[in-house]
Amino acid sequence: MKPLDVLGEMLDNQVLVRLKNGIEVRGVLKAFDIHINLVLDNAEFSDEDVERRFKSLFLRGDMVLFVS
Amino acid sequence: MKPLDVLGEMLDNQVLVRLKNGIEVRGVLKAFDIHINLVLDNAEFSDEDVERRFKSLFLRGDMVLFVS
Amino acid sequence: MKPLDVLGEMLDNQVLVRLKNGIEVRGVLKAFDIHINLVLDNAEFSDEDVERRFKSLFLRGDMVLFVS
Amino acid sequence: MKPLDVLGEMLDNQVLVRLKNGIEVRGVLKAFDIHINLVLDNAEFSDEDVERRFKSLFLRGDMVLFVS
Amino acid sequence: MKPLDVLGEMLDNQVLVRLKNGIEVRGVLKAFDIHINLVLDNAEFSDEDVERRFKSLFLRGDMVLFVS
Amino acid sequence: MKPLDVLGEMLDNQVLVRLKNGIEVRGVLKAFDIHINLVLDNAEFSDEDVERRFKSLFLRGDMVLFVS
Amino acid sequence: MKPLDVLGEMLDNQVLVRLKNGIEVRGVLKAFDIHINLVLDNAEFSDEDVERRFKSLFLRGDMVLFVS
Repeated sequence: MKPLDVLGEMLDNQVLVRLKNGIEVRGVLKAFDIHINLVLDNAEFSDEDVERRFKSLFLRGDMVLFVS
Repeated sequence: MKPLDVLGEMLDNQVLVRLKNGIEVRGVLKAFDIHINLVLDNAEFSDEDVERRFKSLFLRGDMVLFVS
Repeated sequence: MKPLDVLGEMLDNQVLVRLKNGIEVRGVLKAFDIHINLVLDNAEFSDEDVERRFKSLFLRGDMVLFVS
Repeated sequence: MKPLDVLGEMLDNQVLVRLKNGIEVRGVLKAFDIHINLVLDNAEFSDEDVERRFKSLFLRGDMVLFVS
Repeated sequence: MKPLDVLGEMLDNQVLVRLKNGIEVRGVLKAFDIHINLVLDNAEFSDEDVERRFKSLFLRGDMVLFVS
Repeated sequence: MKPLDVLGEMLDNQVLVRLKNGIEVRGVLKAFDIHINLVLDNAEFSDEDVERRFKSLFLRGDMVLFVS
Repeated sequence: MKPLDVLGEMLDNQVLVRLKNGIEVRGVLKAFDIHINLVLDNAEFSDEDVERRFKSLFLRGDMVLFVS
Protein backbone atom coordinates (compact mmCIF):
# COMPACT_ATOMS: atom_id res chain seq x y z
CA MET A 1 0.00 0.00 0.00
CA LYS A 2 1.26 3.48 -0.85
CA PRO A 3 0.38 6.75 0.92
CA LEU A 4 -1.73 7.94 -2.02
CA ASP A 5 -3.84 4.79 -1.74
CA VAL A 6 -4.73 5.88 1.75
CA LEU A 7 -5.82 9.28 0.41
CA GLY A 8 -7.91 7.35 -2.11
CA GLU A 9 -9.73 5.55 0.70
CA MET A 10 -10.59 8.95 2.20
CA LEU A 11 -12.44 10.13 -0.95
CA ASP A 12 -16.01 11.28 -0.23
CA ASN A 13 -15.29 11.21 3.48
CA GLN A 14 -15.03 14.11 5.91
CA VAL A 15 -11.32 14.91 6.43
CA LEU A 16 -9.20 17.27 8.48
CA VAL A 17 -6.38 19.00 6.61
CA ARG A 18 -3.68 20.81 8.54
CA LEU A 19 -1.60 23.32 6.60
CA LYS A 20 2.05 24.10 7.24
CA ASN A 21 1.10 27.48 8.73
CA GLY A 22 -1.07 25.77 11.37
CA ILE A 23 -4.43 26.58 9.74
CA GLU A 24 -6.82 23.63 9.68
CA VAL A 25 -9.51 23.00 7.09
CA ARG A 26 -12.35 20.49 7.33
CA GLY A 27 -14.45 19.23 4.46
CA VAL A 28 -15.36 16.31 2.24
CA LEU A 29 -12.40 15.12 0.14
CA LYS A 30 -13.50 15.12 -3.50
CA ALA A 31 -10.20 14.93 -5.37
CA PHE A 32 -6.42 14.73 -4.95
CA ASP A 33 -3.35 14.26 -7.14
CA ILE A 34 0.31 13.28 -6.74
CA HIS A 35 1.23 16.84 -5.68
CA ILE A 36 -1.31 16.46 -2.83
CA ASN A 37 -3.42 19.20 -4.43
CA LEU A 38 -6.80 18.62 -2.77
CA VAL A 39 -10.42 19.56 -3.42
CA LEU A 40 -12.68 19.78 -0.38
CA ASP A 41 -16.44 20.30 -0.56
CA ASN A 42 -18.31 22.15 2.18
CA ALA A 43 -14.97 23.30 3.50
CA GLU A 44 -14.58 25.10 6.82
CA PHE A 45 -11.47 27.24 6.93
CA SER A 46 -10.72 29.02 10.20
CA ASP A 47 -8.68 32.15 9.70
CA GLU A 48 -7.79 34.10 12.82
CA ASP A 49 -10.87 32.85 14.68
CA VAL A 50 -13.18 33.76 11.79
CA GLU A 51 -14.67 30.63 10.28
CA ARG A 52 -15.38 30.73 6.58
CA ARG A 53 -17.26 28.18 4.54
CA PHE A 54 -16.60 27.32 0.92
CA LYS A 55 -18.81 25.12 -1.25
CA SER A 56 -15.74 23.86 -3.11
CA LEU A 57 -12.14 24.60 -2.21
CA PHE A 58 -9.02 23.84 -4.25
CA LEU A 59 -5.98 23.60 -1.93
CA ARG A 60 -2.46 23.69 -3.38
CA GLY A 61 -0.60 20.59 -2.24
CA ASP A 62 2.68 22.13 -1.19
CA MET A 63 1.02 23.81 1.82
CA VAL A 64 -0.45 20.57 3.20
CA LEU A 65 1.08 19.14 6.38
CA PHE A 66 -1.31 16.28 7.04
CA VAL A 67 -4.67 14.82 6.03
CA SER A 68 -6.71 12.65 8.37
CA MET B 1 -12.07 13.62 -10.92
CA LYS B 2 -8.75 15.35 -10.36
CA PRO B 3 -8.16 18.70 -8.60
CA LEU B 4 -7.31 20.44 -11.89
CA ASP B 5 -10.69 19.38 -13.28
CA VAL B 6 -12.28 21.36 -10.48
CA LEU B 7 -10.23 24.40 -11.48
CA GLY B 8 -11.48 23.80 -15.02
CA GLU B 9 -15.08 24.03 -13.84
CA MET B 10 -14.27 27.42 -12.28
CA LEU B 11 -13.16 28.94 -15.63
CA ASP B 12 -15.03 32.17 -16.48
CA ASN B 13 -16.44 32.30 -12.96
CA GLN B 14 -15.69 34.75 -10.19
CA VAL B 15 -13.15 33.15 -7.82
CA LEU B 16 -11.39 33.97 -4.58
CA VAL B 17 -7.65 33.22 -4.49
CA ARG B 18 -5.79 33.24 -1.20
CA LEU B 19 -2.02 33.54 -1.39
CA LYS B 20 0.43 31.98 1.06
CA ASN B 21 1.17 35.41 2.57
CA GLY B 22 -2.51 35.87 3.45
CA ILE B 23 -3.32 38.32 0.64
CA GLU B 24 -6.58 37.54 -1.14
CA VAL B 25 -7.37 38.31 -4.78
CA ARG B 26 -10.79 38.19 -6.42
CA GLY B 27 -11.49 38.05 -10.12
CA VAL B 28 -12.76 36.02 -13.05
CA LEU B 29 -10.63 32.93 -13.68
CA LYS B 30 -9.53 33.00 -17.32
CA ALA B 31 -6.68 30.49 -17.41
CA PHE B 32 -4.64 28.06 -15.28
CA ASP B 33 -1.96 25.42 -15.80
CA ILE B 34 -0.47 22.48 -13.90
CA HIS B 35 1.77 24.80 -11.86
CA ILE B 36 -1.45 26.55 -10.70
CA ASN B 37 -0.29 29.70 -12.51
CA LEU B 38 -3.57 31.63 -12.82
CA VAL B 39 -4.92 34.50 -14.90
CA LEU B 40 -7.68 36.58 -13.34
CA ASP B 41 -9.62 39.27 -15.17
CA ASN B 42 -10.99 42.32 -13.34
CA ALA B 43 -8.84 41.32 -10.39
CA GLU B 44 -9.12 43.02 -7.00
CA PHE B 45 -5.92 42.75 -4.99
CA SER B 46 -5.97 44.18 -1.48
CA ASP B 47 -2.54 45.23 -0.31
CA GLU B 48 -2.31 46.69 3.20
CA ASP B 49 -5.90 47.95 3.07
CA VAL B 50 -5.38 49.61 -0.32
CA GLU B 51 -7.47 47.88 -2.96
CA ARG B 52 -6.05 47.79 -6.44
CA ARG B 53 -7.78 46.66 -9.60
CA PHE B 54 -6.14 44.99 -12.56
CA LYS B 55 -7.82 44.34 -15.91
CA SER B 56 -5.77 41.15 -16.31
CA LEU B 57 -3.51 39.62 -13.67
CA PHE B 58 -1.03 36.76 -14.10
CA LEU B 59 -0.42 35.08 -10.71
CA ARG B 60 2.55 32.71 -10.26
CA GLY B 61 1.24 29.38 -9.02
CA ASP B 62 3.72 28.68 -6.25
CA MET B 63 2.26 31.49 -4.14
CA VAL B 64 -1.32 30.17 -4.30
CA LEU B 65 -2.79 28.64 -1.13
CA PHE B 66 -6.36 28.05 -2.27
CA VAL B 67 -8.85 28.87 -5.02
CA SER B 68 -12.59 28.86 -4.42
CA MET C 1 21.17 -0.86 1.23
CA LYS C 2 19.39 2.40 0.46
CA PRO C 3 17.66 4.72 2.96
CA LEU C 4 14.19 3.77 1.65
CA ASP C 5 14.98 0.11 2.39
CA VAL C 6 15.40 1.10 6.02
CA LEU C 7 11.97 2.75 5.95
CA GLY C 8 10.67 -0.50 4.47
CA GLU C 9 11.98 -2.43 7.47
CA MET C 10 10.05 -0.06 9.76
CA LEU C 11 6.66 -0.91 8.14
CA ASP C 12 4.06 -2.07 10.67
CA ASN C 13 6.31 -0.94 13.51
CA GLN C 14 5.82 1.91 15.95
CA VAL C 15 7.88 4.89 14.73
CA LEU C 16 8.70 8.40 15.86
CA VAL C 17 8.51 11.08 13.16
CA ARG C 18 9.98 14.50 13.80
CA LEU C 19 8.79 17.31 11.53
CA LYS C 20 10.90 20.28 10.45
CA ASN C 21 8.91 22.57 12.76
CA GLY C 22 9.87 20.46 15.79
CA ILE C 23 6.50 18.71 16.16
CA GLU C 24 6.80 14.97 16.78
CA VAL C 25 4.29 12.33 15.75
CA ARG C 26 4.19 8.72 16.92
CA GLY C 27 2.33 5.90 15.27
CA VAL C 28 2.51 2.67 13.32
CA LEU C 29 4.11 3.15 9.88
CA LYS C 30 1.70 1.76 7.29
CA ALA C 31 2.99 3.26 4.05
CA PHE C 32 5.68 5.52 2.56
CA ASP C 33 6.84 6.58 -0.89
CA ILE C 34 9.92 8.16 -2.49
CA HIS C 35 8.78 11.66 -1.45
CA ILE C 36 8.79 10.37 2.17
CA ASN C 37 5.02 10.87 2.28
CA LEU C 38 4.04 8.69 5.25
CA VAL C 39 0.91 7.06 6.61
CA LEU C 40 0.78 6.45 10.34
CA ASP C 41 -1.96 4.50 12.11
CA ASN C 42 -3.00 5.32 15.69
CA ALA C 43 -0.99 8.51 15.38
CA GLU C 44 -0.30 10.78 18.33
CA PHE C 45 0.37 14.34 17.28
CA SER C 46 1.28 16.82 20.02
CA ASP C 47 0.37 20.37 19.12
CA GLU C 48 1.18 23.03 21.70
CA ASP C 49 0.91 20.57 24.58
CA VAL C 50 -2.46 19.27 23.38
CA GLU C 51 -2.15 15.66 22.29
CA ARG C 52 -4.40 14.56 19.46
CA ARG C 53 -4.96 11.05 18.20
CA PHE C 54 -5.72 10.07 14.63
CA LYS C 55 -6.77 6.62 13.46
CA SER C 56 -4.96 7.15 10.17
CA LEU C 57 -2.73 10.11 9.31
CA PHE C 58 -1.28 11.03 5.92
CA LEU C 59 1.87 13.17 6.40
CA ARG C 60 3.31 15.09 3.45
CA GLY C 61 6.92 14.08 3.01
CA ASP C 62 8.51 17.48 2.59
CA MET C 63 7.87 18.35 6.24
CA VAL C 64 9.62 15.25 7.60
CA LEU C 65 12.97 15.73 9.34
CA PHE C 66 13.56 12.18 10.61
CA VAL C 67 11.90 8.82 11.13
CA SER C 68 13.08 6.37 13.77
CA MET D 1 -5.94 29.75 -23.33
CA LYS D 2 -3.08 29.10 -20.92
CA PRO D 3 -1.52 31.58 -18.45
CA LEU D 4 1.68 31.83 -20.51
CA ASP D 5 -0.39 32.89 -23.52
CA VAL D 6 -1.55 35.86 -21.48
CA LEU D 7 2.08 36.75 -20.77
CA GLY D 8 2.67 36.48 -24.49
CA GLU D 9 -0.01 39.10 -25.15
CA MET D 10 1.80 41.45 -22.75
CA LEU D 11 5.06 41.38 -24.79
CA ASP D 12 6.28 44.86 -25.76
CA ASN D 13 3.76 46.40 -23.38
CA GLN D 14 4.38 48.28 -20.15
CA VAL D 15 3.82 45.85 -17.24
CA LEU D 16 3.85 45.92 -13.45
CA VAL D 17 5.68 43.04 -11.77
CA ARG D 18 5.25 42.45 -8.06
CA LEU D 19 7.87 40.30 -6.38
CA LYS D 20 7.25 37.99 -3.42
CA ASN D 21 9.09 40.39 -1.10
CA GLY D 22 6.63 43.19 -2.00
CA ILE D 23 9.00 45.10 -4.30
CA GLU D 24 7.37 46.23 -7.53
CA VAL D 25 9.10 46.72 -10.87
CA ARG D 26 7.69 48.48 -13.92
CA GLY D 27 8.98 48.20 -17.45
CA VAL D 28 8.38 46.96 -20.97
CA LEU D 29 8.13 43.16 -21.12
CA LYS D 30 10.63 41.93 -23.70
CA ALA D 31 10.92 38.22 -22.92
CA PHE D 32 9.67 35.44 -20.63
CA ASP D 33 9.97 31.67 -20.34
CA ILE D 34 8.17 28.80 -18.59
CA HIS D 35 9.99 29.53 -15.31
CA ILE D 36 8.50 33.06 -15.50
CA ASN D 37 12.01 34.44 -15.87
CA LEU D 38 11.31 37.91 -17.29
CA VAL D 39 13.23 40.61 -19.14
CA LEU D 40 12.01 44.18 -18.69
CA ASP D 41 13.34 47.15 -20.63
CA ASN D 42 13.46 50.63 -19.10
CA ALA D 43 12.74 49.02 -15.75
CA GLU D 44 11.97 51.04 -12.64
CA PHE D 45 12.81 49.18 -9.45
CA SER D 46 11.96 50.88 -6.17
CA ASP D 47 14.16 49.73 -3.33
CA GLU D 48 13.50 51.32 0.07
CA ASP D 49 12.07 54.49 -1.50
CA VAL D 50 15.07 54.87 -3.83
CA GLU D 51 13.99 54.42 -7.43
CA ARG D 52 16.52 52.88 -9.76
CA ARG D 53 16.29 52.59 -13.52
CA PHE D 54 17.74 49.79 -15.61
CA LYS D 55 17.93 49.78 -19.39
CA SER D 56 17.45 46.00 -19.42
CA LEU D 57 16.64 43.86 -16.39
CA PHE D 58 16.64 40.05 -16.15
CA LEU D 59 14.34 38.96 -13.30
CA ARG D 60 14.53 35.37 -11.99
CA GLY D 61 11.08 33.83 -12.22
CA ASP D 62 10.85 32.22 -8.81
CA MET D 63 10.61 35.63 -7.12
CA VAL D 64 7.65 36.81 -9.23
CA LEU D 65 4.26 37.07 -7.50
CA PHE D 66 2.23 38.65 -10.29
CA VAL D 67 2.52 40.37 -13.66
CA SER D 68 -0.11 42.79 -14.93
CA MET E 1 35.54 11.71 -8.12
CA LYS E 2 32.04 12.95 -7.38
CA PRO E 3 30.68 14.15 -3.98
CA LEU E 4 28.50 11.05 -3.59
CA ASP E 5 31.61 8.88 -3.95
CA VAL E 6 32.97 10.60 -0.88
CA LEU E 7 29.77 9.76 1.01
CA GLY E 8 30.27 6.19 -0.17
CA GLU E 9 33.70 6.10 1.44
CA MET E 10 32.11 7.18 4.73
CA LEU E 11 29.77 4.14 4.85
CA ASP E 12 30.05 2.15 8.09
CA ASN E 13 32.09 4.95 9.63
CA GLN E 14 31.15 7.32 12.44
CA VAL E 15 30.01 10.61 10.88
CA LEU E 16 28.87 14.03 12.03
CA VAL E 17 25.81 15.44 10.25
CA ARG E 18 24.89 19.09 10.63
CA LEU E 19 21.35 20.06 9.74
CA LYS E 20 20.29 23.41 8.28
CA ASN E 21 18.71 24.38 11.60
CA GLY E 22 22.06 23.97 13.40
CA ILE E 23 21.23 20.64 15.06
CA GLU E 24 24.02 18.08 14.82
CA VAL E 25 23.63 14.32 14.72
CA ARG E 26 26.37 11.73 15.18
CA GLY E 27 26.18 8.09 14.20
CA VAL E 28 27.38 5.35 11.89
CA LEU E 29 26.45 6.02 8.26
CA LYS E 30 24.60 2.97 6.97
CA ALA E 31 22.92 4.27 3.80
CA PHE E 32 22.50 7.33 1.59
CA ASP E 33 20.94 8.19 -1.76
CA ILE E 34 21.13 10.96 -4.37
CA HIS E 35 18.73 13.14 -2.34
CA ILE E 36 21.25 12.88 0.55
CA ASN E 37 18.63 10.98 2.56
CA LEU E 38 20.78 9.30 5.21
CA VAL E 39 20.47 6.40 7.64
CA LEU E 40 22.55 6.60 10.81
CA ASP E 41 22.87 3.77 13.33
CA ASN E 42 23.40 4.49 17.03
CA ALA E 43 22.53 8.09 16.32
CA GLU E 44 22.95 10.84 18.92
CA PHE E 45 20.63 13.77 18.28
CA SER E 46 20.96 16.76 20.58
CA ASP E 47 17.76 18.74 20.85
CA GLU E 48 17.85 21.78 23.11
CA ASP E 49 20.56 20.31 25.32
CA VAL E 50 18.72 17.02 25.69
CA GLU E 51 20.64 14.22 23.99
CA ARG E 52 18.58 11.43 22.49
CA ARG E 53 19.82 8.15 21.09
CA PHE E 54 18.26 6.24 18.23
CA LYS E 55 19.20 2.73 17.17
CA SER E 56 18.44 3.59 13.54
CA LEU E 57 17.59 7.04 12.23
CA PHE E 58 16.32 7.97 8.77
CA LEU E 59 17.19 11.62 8.00
CA ARG E 60 15.48 13.40 5.09
CA GLY E 61 18.16 14.75 2.78
CA ASP E 62 16.84 18.25 2.21
CA MET E 63 17.62 19.24 5.82
CA VAL E 64 21.29 18.20 5.62
CA LEU E 65 23.90 20.97 5.56
CA PHE E 66 27.06 18.87 5.78
CA VAL E 67 28.38 15.38 6.48
CA SER E 68 31.89 14.76 7.77
CA MET F 1 13.77 36.23 -27.81
CA LYS F 2 14.01 34.35 -24.51
CA PRO F 3 15.30 35.69 -21.16
CA LEU F 4 18.47 33.56 -21.37
CA ASP F 5 19.29 35.17 -24.72
CA VAL F 6 19.37 38.48 -22.91
CA LEU F 7 21.84 37.03 -20.40
CA GLY F 8 23.85 35.85 -23.38
CA GLU F 9 24.10 39.42 -24.69
CA MET F 10 25.48 40.48 -21.30
CA LEU F 11 28.47 38.07 -21.52
CA ASP F 12 31.83 39.82 -21.08
CA ASN F 13 30.06 42.96 -19.92
CA GLN F 14 30.01 44.54 -16.49
CA VAL F 15 26.76 43.51 -14.74
CA LEU F 16 24.98 44.16 -11.45
CA VAL F 17 23.54 41.08 -9.73
CA ARG F 18 21.10 41.51 -6.86
CA LEU F 19 20.62 38.51 -4.60
CA LYS F 20 17.37 37.61 -2.83
CA ASN F 21 18.86 38.68 0.50
CA GLY F 22 19.47 42.20 -0.86
CA ILE F 23 23.23 41.82 -1.32
CA GLU F 24 24.49 43.17 -4.66
CA VAL F 25 27.49 41.93 -6.59
CA ARG F 26 29.17 43.65 -9.53
CA GLY F 27 31.50 42.05 -12.00
CA VAL F 28 32.09 40.91 -15.56
CA LEU F 29 29.69 38.13 -16.57
CA LYS F 30 31.78 35.22 -17.84
CA ALA F 31 29.30 32.32 -17.78
CA PHE F 32 25.70 31.36 -16.97
CA ASP F 33 23.45 28.32 -17.34
CA ILE F 34 19.72 27.53 -17.27
CA HIS F 35 19.72 27.48 -13.45
CA ILE F 36 21.03 31.08 -13.60
CA ASN F 37 24.26 29.91 -11.98
CA LEU F 38 26.62 32.76 -12.83
CA VAL F 39 30.35 33.33 -12.97
CA LEU F 40 31.57 36.88 -12.44
CA ASP F 41 35.16 38.01 -12.88
CA ASN F 42 36.61 40.85 -10.81
CA ALA F 43 33.55 40.61 -8.59
CA GLU F 44 32.78 43.15 -5.89
CA PHE F 45 30.61 41.72 -3.14
CA SER F 46 29.54 44.09 -0.38
CA ASP F 47 28.86 42.31 2.88
CA GLU F 48 27.77 44.48 5.79
CA ASP F 49 29.57 47.53 4.42
CA VAL F 50 32.80 45.59 3.90
CA GLU F 51 33.58 45.32 0.20
CA ARG F 52 35.37 42.19 -0.91
CA ARG F 53 36.87 41.50 -4.31
CA PHE F 54 37.09 38.12 -5.96
CA LYS F 55 39.02 37.37 -9.13
CA SER F 56 36.43 34.78 -10.14
CA LEU F 57 33.14 34.13 -8.34
CA PHE F 58 30.70 31.26 -8.91
CA LEU F 59 27.19 32.32 -7.76
CA ARG F 60 24.49 29.66 -7.28
CA GLY F 61 21.51 30.59 -9.42
CA ASP F 62 18.72 30.07 -6.93
CA MET F 63 19.83 33.09 -4.89
CA VAL F 64 19.72 35.49 -7.86
CA LEU F 65 16.92 38.09 -7.93
CA PHE F 66 17.99 40.10 -10.97
CA VAL F 67 20.86 40.69 -13.38
CA SER F 68 21.31 43.97 -15.21
CA MET G 1 32.23 28.23 -21.04
CA LYS G 2 29.63 27.19 -18.48
CA PRO G 3 29.63 27.95 -14.72
CA LEU G 4 30.41 24.33 -13.84
CA ASP G 5 33.52 24.50 -16.00
CA VAL G 6 34.73 27.27 -13.74
CA LEU G 7 34.16 25.03 -10.71
CA GLY G 8 36.14 22.37 -12.56
CA GLU G 9 39.11 24.74 -12.85
CA MET G 10 38.98 25.24 -9.07
CA LEU G 11 39.47 21.50 -8.33
CA ASP G 12 42.43 20.81 -6.01
CA ASN G 13 42.69 24.50 -5.24
CA GLN G 14 41.95 26.31 -1.98
CA VAL G 15 38.44 27.82 -2.22
CA LEU G 16 36.14 29.96 -0.12
CA VAL G 17 32.51 28.80 0.06
CA ARG G 18 29.86 31.11 1.46
CA LEU G 19 26.61 29.49 2.57
CA LYS G 20 23.19 31.12 2.37
CA ASN G 21 23.16 31.55 6.15
CA GLY G 22 26.36 33.64 5.99
CA ILE G 23 28.69 30.92 7.29
CA GLU G 24 31.92 30.64 5.29
CA VAL G 25 33.97 27.50 4.78
CA ARG G 26 37.50 27.29 3.42
CA GLY G 27 39.18 24.20 2.07
CA VAL G 28 40.56 22.38 -0.94
CA LEU G 29 37.84 21.59 -3.50
CA LYS G 30 38.00 17.85 -4.21
CA ALA G 31 34.64 17.20 -5.90
CA PHE G 32 31.42 18.85 -7.08
CA ASP G 33 28.34 17.88 -9.07
CA ILE G 34 25.49 19.60 -10.94
CA HIS G 35 23.60 20.20 -7.67
CA ILE G 36 26.70 22.11 -6.46
CA ASN G 37 27.20 19.46 -3.78
CA LEU G 38 30.84 20.02 -2.82
CA VAL G 39 33.58 18.10 -1.06
CA LEU G 40 36.25 20.14 0.68
CA ASP G 41 39.40 18.69 2.22
CA ASN G 42 41.05 20.29 5.27
CA ALA G 43 37.91 22.38 5.67
CA GLU G 44 37.69 25.25 8.14
CA PHE G 45 34.11 25.96 9.19
CA SER G 46 33.55 28.91 11.50
CA ASP G 47 30.46 28.50 13.62
CA GLU G 48 29.70 31.32 16.04
CA ASP G 49 33.35 32.30 16.35
CA VAL G 50 34.41 28.72 17.02
CA GLU G 51 36.54 27.41 14.17
CA ARG G 52 36.29 23.73 13.43
CA ARG G 53 38.43 21.71 11.09
CA PHE G 54 37.31 18.71 9.08
CA LYS G 55 39.59 16.40 7.14
CA SER G 56 36.86 15.88 4.52
CA LEU G 57 33.55 17.74 4.38
CA PHE G 58 30.55 16.97 2.17
CA LEU G 59 28.45 20.15 1.70
CA ARG G 60 24.90 19.89 0.32
CA GLY G 61 24.64 22.11 -2.74
CA ASP G 62 21.38 23.85 -2.02
CA MET G 63 22.95 25.80 0.86
CA VAL G 64 25.79 27.22 -1.25
CA LEU G 65 25.68 30.93 -2.11
CA PHE G 66 29.05 31.30 -3.81
CA VAL G 67 32.37 29.58 -4.42
CA SER G 68 35.56 31.49 -5.11
